Amino acid sequence: MPTLTGQKLEQAAELLAEAGLDVWLTFVRETSCGGDPVLPLIAEGGLTWQSALLVSKTGRKVAVVGNYDAPPLAASGDWDEVRSYVDDIREEFLKALESLCEGVESPAIGVNFSPDDDKADGLTHGMFLVLEEYLNGTRFEGRLVSAASVVGALRARKTGEEVRRIRQAIAQTEMLFERVSGFAAVGRNELEVQQFVHALIDENGWGYGWDRAGNPIVNSGPHSMVGHGIPAPTILIEPGHIFHVDLGVVVEGYSSDIQRCWYVPAQEESEPPQDVVRALEAVNAAISAGFDALRPGARGWEVDAVARKTIQSLGYPEYLHALGHQVGRMAHDGGVILGPRWARYGNTPHLAIEPGHVYTLELGVDVEGRGYLGVEEMVRVTESGAEWLTSRQLEMPLLGRS
Amino acid sequence: MPTLTGQKLEQAAELLAEAGLDVWLTFVRETSCGGDPVLPLIAEGGLTWQSALLVSKTGRKVAVVGNYDAPPLAASGDWDEVRSYVDDIREEFLKALESLCEGVESPAIGVNFSPDDDKADGLTHGMFLVLEEYLNGTRFEGRLVSAASVVGALRARKTGEEVRRIRQAIAQTEMLFERVSGFAAVGRNELEVQQFVHALIDENGWGYGWDRAGNPIVNSGPHSMVGHGIPAPTILIEPGHIFHVDLGVVVEGYSSDIQRCWYVPAQEESEPPQDVVRALEAVNAAISAGFDALRPGARGWEVDAVARKTIQSLGYPEYLHALGHQVGRMAHDGGVILGPRWARYGNTPHLAIEPGHVYTLELGVDVEGRGYLGVEEMVRVTESGAEWLTSRQLEMPLLGRS
Repeated sequence: MPTLTGQKLEQAAELLAEAGLDVWLTFVRETSCGGDPVLPLIAEGGLTWQSALLVSKTGRKVAVVGNYDAPPLAASGDWDEVRSYVDDIREEFLKALESLCEGVESPAIGVNFSPDDDKADGLTHGMFLVLEEYLNGTRFEGRLVSAASVVGALRARKTGEEVRRIRQAIAQTEMLFERVSGFAAVGRNELEVQQFVHALIDENGWGYGWDRAGNPIVNSGPHSMVGHGIPAPTILIEPGHIFHVDLGVVVEGYSSDIQRCWYVPAQEESEPPQDVVRALEAVNAAISAGFDALRPGARGWEVDAVARKTIQSLGYPEYLHALGHQVGRMAHDGGVILGPRWARYGNTPHLAIEPGHVYTLELGVDVEGRGYLGVEEMVRVTESGAEWLTSRQLEMPLLGRS
Repeated sequence: MPTLTGQKLEQAAELLAEAGLDVWLTFVRETSCGGDPVLPLIAEGGLTWQSALLVSKTGRKVAVVGNYDAPPLAASGDWDEVRSYVDDIREEFLKALESLCEGVESPAIGVNFSPDDDKADGLTHGMFLVLEEYLNGTRFEGRLVSAASVVGALRARKTGEEVRRIRQAIAQTEMLFERVSGFAAVGRNELEVQQFVHALIDENGWGYGWDRAGNPIVNSGPHSMVGHGIPAPTILIEPGHIFHVDLGVVVEGYSSDIQRCWYVPAQEESEPPQDVVRALEAVNAAISAGFDALRPGARGWEVDAVARKTIQSLGYPEYLHALGHQVGRMAHDGGVILGPRWARYGNTPHLAIEPGHVYTLELGVDVEGRGYLGVEEMVRVTESGAEWLTSRQLEMPLLGRS
């Protein structure tokens, strides 16, 4: 059984032909601070000095890395060859490139840049200049092109093992929502809830699908900072308000991204009020409409448009974000966006949905005087449609009542 | 008292004049996956859509961000103006740039790319292309230059608060070494030690100065994978061997980076053998020589050369890495490298050391049949020399004997 990184490297080799590329080059250094977002898919651990990870369309995989980085890469068994260097990568890198391009007259070398897809845009501009300098005067000069289609497909088309890990992250996130449901109560503040979740995540050694400072997002009532805000110690959970949490947890390298909400009842209330019930129904109607439109071949913007129209037809304003995004190594995993054709999304809403993609479906509405009611589910695209990965929130639980 | 991000933004404004820049632009999107490494210095939390963070040499600070990212930035109090947009950043961005360049005929706009300094190279190539496209046809076309000197100095010149946080990270790391000293014992394996440290770091909610999978590095005996390897469950702590740990912990956003080693005595041994003692003395002589050469105005390669010559003069081979690097938000924090003039370090060993810089001083030697003996200290450059931030390891403790 190959490693997951080994499986993804095999998949990359197959994608090269589809993309018309001869070689795919991931060129990084000092990756401990983030580095190229594609790196975790193809190599465990970090790389320190300039490193060239090369895959050819013939399936050959060669890594050229600094001396101290070579042993773990060699030990992974993922690479046909690991070349190491001490003072200067240039010579070993050019040799490796030549060996992979033998017999190819005008090779197309894909590198990781994209104006549109941030997760296929891991090559920094400084490293692009370094690369150009290495290739100047060689037969590879001017042969660099974008590998965005390879990287996009590699992230998006989840293997069975990747789906298993995402399901596992979802299960743990649903467990955390259960715990939140028991902890959050009238009088507690937003920040306390976030700290409660942080403690559970940290003690399990899990990671965060986005920045820890804003994960989970916790919103209580109409005065909370909705969007990407930081939970406030000054905002308390109060009766008559909506309580809302948006959480993404990374387990075994794969993330969840789920929103749930609760109604905080006053003493005399035994069920949520009608304005809250209606809002939840409208949000779910829009999510269902998006789900029904989600199938291989559809474009991202088409799926968004159906949901957007549904929520508006039910008398609510449109949401000022995309209906959904891919989830994988990170909560926001790049590739196709199920969003409107706004400039800020570039070409990503125009891309085609494929089997094996994993998306969120998410939106919310403000309920006057009560707060933000948002729901976010996760789905996987199948050969003919889609399947739910999360257990949908179809009812509005009462916070503090079991 | 301004926030730490506010202090760093003030510092950035002062650095612009020194660098001959009119405006410094940090241009990012979807930063949850790492993003530009300079971002944590100037903004708490992440940014989702295309975001332009602008500082002028007059000290004015303007952020242009997507609608959901605006409230936390506005709440920070760090920015004179926060402009938000929903569908397209272009118009608000160009307005903000114009307002900061009013009266400047040919403005120099610094952006974050550098072939040499990875921590000043946060602008991706795709985002560089996006930026060029926005500026085409405006009076800012062709005005982009590297802001590496601003970013480098901003990271490197630590404020009092930054030094306080680094000292705190060091104190917690020294505490962790104490705990390791009590846990590691004959019969335990490398991976167990790493997992023990991970549990302590995770339960405190601290972060990792580099990738968790290889942090701490744990080496036991002569068959361990030295460098950036992953601890092995198959390699046991054994009498007669050297046990070595390299650890970087992030506390309140600032990192440590320290190496310590122990000798594992056989029953009859009450002190480390002479070959081990000699090796530790040689390593420390080289570190001391580097320390003595470390002062404002010296070049990184000069400091390295003194230490490199010392270890060789004592009969040991030279180390195949740099003597030291800066430490800050990350263990490897970019900027000046105290290293040899090898191509892989670019121009970074040629840069000048300044007061307020924080460096590691690190090297090691292989002791035949016993393993890798490495020591890494941390120091701060003062007006006239340097001061130790760590309590130096001048003796070789016996593992398992208190």
